[in-house]
Formats: sequence, C-alpha cells, structure tokens
Amino acid sequence: MTVPYVHKIQYYETDKMGVTHHSNYVRFMEEARVDYLDQIGYSFGRMEAEGLVSPVVSVNVRYVKPTFFGDKIEIAVSLSEMTAAKMRIGYTMTCNGEIVCQAESLHCFVDKNSRPISLKRAKPQLFELLSSLVQNN
Amino acid sequence: MTVPYVHKIQYYETDKMGVTHHSNYVRFMEEARVDYLDQIGYSFGRMEAEGLVSPVVSVNVRYVKPTFFGDKIEIAVSLSEMTAAKMRIGYTMTCNGEIVCQAESLHCFVDKNSRPISLKRAKPQLFELLSSLVQNN
Amino acid sequence: MTVPYVHKIQYYETDKMGVTHHSNYVRFMEEARVDYLDQIGYSFGRMEAEGLVSPVVSVNVRYVKPTFFGDKIEIAVSLSEMTAAKMRIGYTMTCNGEIVCQAESLHCFVDKNSRPISLKRAKPQLFELLSSLVQNN
Amino acid sequence: MTVPYVHKIQYYETDKMGVTHHSNYVRFMEEARVDYLDQIGYSFGRMEAEGLVSPVVSVNVRYVKPTFFGDKIEIAVSLSEMTAAKMRIGYTMTCNGEIVCQAESLHCFVDKNSRPISLKRAKPQLFELLSSLVQNN
Repeated sequence: MTVPYVHKIQYYETDKMGVTHHSNYVRFMEEARVDYLDQIGYSFGRMEAEGLVSPVVSVNVRYVKPTFFGDKIEIAVSLSEMTAAKMRIGYTMTCNGEIVCQAESLHCFVDKNSRPISLKRAKPQLFELLSSLVQNN
Repeated sequence: MTVPYVHKIQYYETDKMGVTHHSNYVRFMEEARVDYLDQIGYSFGRMEAEGLVSPVVSVNVRYVKPTFFGDKIEIAVSLSEMTAAKMRIGYTMTCNGEIVCQAESLHCFVDKNSRPISLKRAKPQLFELLSSLVQNN
Repeated sequence: MTVPYVHKIQYYETDKMGVTHHSNYVRFMEEARVDYLDQIGYSFGRMEAEGLVSPVVSVNVRYVKPTFFGDKIEIAVSLSEMTAAKMRIGYTMTCNGEIVCQAESLHCFVDKNSRPISLKRAKPQLFELLSSLVQNN
Repeated sequence: MTVPYVHKIQYYETDKMGVTHHSNYVRFMEEARVDYLDQIGYSFGRMEAEGLVSPVVSVNVRYVKPTFFGDKIEIAVSLSEMTAAKMRIGYTMTCNGEIVCQAESLHCFVDKNSRPISLKRAKPQLFELLSSLVQNN
C-alpha cells in the first residue's frame, strides 16, 4: 500500500572509515517514518495541529552491510504492533537488492503537555487506521 | 576505575520539540566509548595503527527522560560481554542524578580488509585486558 | 541547463527555535553541488576515480528567511568563477518562491596527496567544461 | 578575559576524506559562542528567559588546514562589531598552535515574536557590556 522511502547517502553522512556513519540510520528511520505517515494521510504536521505527539521510546538498529556515498537506500516501513499506549514500527533498509540494515522504533503518545494519553480514546479514528495497517510477519 | 564521560547538550542537538534529538544519543555513545578506550589505555588511534577495526553491529537505545540545551549528561560505560568475536558495551546516561537514557552497542572485530577476526588470537593482550573489565550486573 | 536541487527539511534538521538550524545549510550546499556535478556529467565518484579532489576553501552563507520542518527548498547552483586553481560556486535557495538563503563556496583542486594542482593542466577537458558553465550575473 | 573554547573532534564529525567535515565548523562556532556568552555572564538561557533572541544573519568560514579525529581545536572568540541592531563575532581556531580555521558570524536581535529590536534600547545593560568587549584588530 505504501511505497518505500528512498534516502541517497550524502558526503557529510560518511565517516573516516569511508562508510555511512552508523548514527545516521536513526535519522533515516525518522525520514522514512515521516514519509510513511504522509502516505497514509496522517502527517506529522496534522498530528501536531491536533495536539498529538509521539515521542521515540526506544530504537533498535542492526547494521547488516555498510553503505557508501551516493548509495540509494530503500526503506520499507511497517507497523508491527499497535496498542492504545504504544506503536512499534519496523524498518527494512535495502541497497541494490540486499538488506543493509534492520531496525525498529517504539513510540508512545503524549499530549501537548507531555502527559501520556490513550490514542484509542484521544484519536479513535487514527487508532483504527493505524491498527488496520499492522502487519504480522 | 574509569570515570564517566560528560557531554554538554549543544543548541544544534536540539529539535523543534525543544529537546535533544533522539538520534544524537547514538553519537554520545560513540563519544563515551572512545573516551573509555582512551582511559583504559587502548585508544581508537592505537587500534587503527595496529590494523584493528571494531564496527558497530547493533545499537539498542532506550530513552527514559528528555534532556535539554545546556544539560550535562554523565555517561557511564561498562563492558557487559566479551568473546573472541564480539564485545558488548553498556551505557547509562544520567543528568542531575536521574537516568535519562540506557543503551548498549554490540561490536565485532575486523582487520584492515574488513575480514572478521578473533580478537583472542589477533590481539591476545587486548583481549585479556577487555575480558578483565567485563562487569556482570 | 541544470535543474535546481530540492531538499526537504527533516525533523532532525530543526532546532529548539522551531526552525532549520543554520549549520545545515552548509550541508544543503554540498548536496546541491554533488547533484550539479552529476547533472553536468562529472560526478564526485568520477573525480575521485580520476584522482581529483576539490576541497572547500571557504563558505559564505547569508540567511534571509527561516525555513521549517517539511519545507521543500529549491537550490539553484551556478558557477560564478573558474580559474586554473579555484572554482567559485553560488547557491540561491528558495522556498515557496521566496529567497531563504544565498551562499557561495570556494574550492581549490588537489591531487590524491593533497598537493595543489592546476585543473587547466591536470584535467583540461573538465576545465573547459566548467569554464563554459560560468555565469556572469 | 575569556578563555578559548576547546572542541575535540569526534569520529562522527569526520568524512570519507578522513578529515573533519567542513560543515561542522559552523557548529563549533556556535559551541564557542554559547561558551563565550556563559563566560561573560550572559548565557543563552538568560537571554531566552529575558525574551531576547539573536539569530544568525550570516556566517563566513575560511578553512585553512584540515583537522582530524581526536584533534583538540582551540577556539578564541572575539566581538568585532557592535551596533544597536547587529553584533559581529570573530572566531580563530587553532590546533597544535597552528590556525586551522578563521570565521565570523553576524547576528541581529529580535524579540519573542521575531520582530527586530534595538538592543541598545531593549537591553541597555547588555548592550553596554557587549560594546565594552569589542576588540579592534
């Protein structure tokens, strides 16, 4: 339903080993997540306008193969878990058909005053939409 | 034996939420790791000079509390696992006495040509040193 | 002849003022420069393969208007000066039809051993190509 | 009166050329500027608390010598010009006694609503302090 996000590796994202610095993948995850929400019609901008914030609770990143300046990384995003309080997102990054990185991020939901909220109660429509997108793999 | 590394949050490390952007903690981990190796007498520079590279295989980061511009984060580094092929490092980040982030990184060992090596065989002295530092908690 | 490069502002590029952090524009300049060289058929990769490096000697950046998360910045690149030893590149960044940033970078040419070279002598063909693209405005 | 700020080059600040990526110097300038204001007793935090913001209008950076992972860069900050509407700051970065980078940034003053203000009128005490620090060289 959604198309993978593409990130092209920039020169400033490489390090003295000649490869993409590992910290940048956490930024690629955010880029892909923002794009995914755009694609399903619930952008960050709309969330913010509605007073909803979804902070990152944790990230797990597994580096499979190095990538290089100029590489185009395809990032497939999928929702792997959805509860009233939490959302788990998976990321599979490939380059030239090979997996280069597997990652996931866990998010909670808070209001403008940083108080935890139940998404199910606060935004039932968005909760239903996201729940319907959960992929079991 | 080692002292915690201190990172002061810079303005450019904050995001529009007004807090330290989560991707930066992976960079703080690297800063603290480099400092830890300096402290135990086996710097990155020495490793590189000896043809040893220790790429990051994975990182897990759990964000406990947000931090802000000007905050001084103390990062305590500990070796939690050491085998011939892998090293696991733990990071506990505190600010004003409270834990703000818990993380770990897993590393392998490769030579200059990116071929996996046994640290035990390639650098027995370093392997013994690191093994002696493993903390079981 | 070349088309402007487009950079979309990422969340991690914003700061606690809620705007794009000013340091990132220097990175956008590099992105646009790399893209420009791709467009004229002389990519960074090709340059490196031919043993040519073009370090940044200086940058001047004038911030005209702030930009925000999600903004799409169009970056028009032009060569403003070309000598055997130096290349000056101009950048005009617009967003929604308004100029947000004006910048330029100055570059020299060195070989693999970081020794300054005359591009005119070392790569006459590339020198001619670049000279033909200089815009006087 | 003030002491130079020291920035140690991090691994993630290097690029595939093996040197500090040029964009990072703009960040070092900010680090040194923040530290300078701390030293003269008028921190960013205090400014913000008083409703004063000082956006960057322009930066000029001249890269003199490359720096490398682990290098400790000393950054001497000086105020070179001060008017009711603008402040110009100079930065001289040295490493092992040699100049590696010369830079300056120009700042204006705005209130919380981003409206330009006269610092002389809005904060006469701060204006006097800053004016007294201007160095003519």
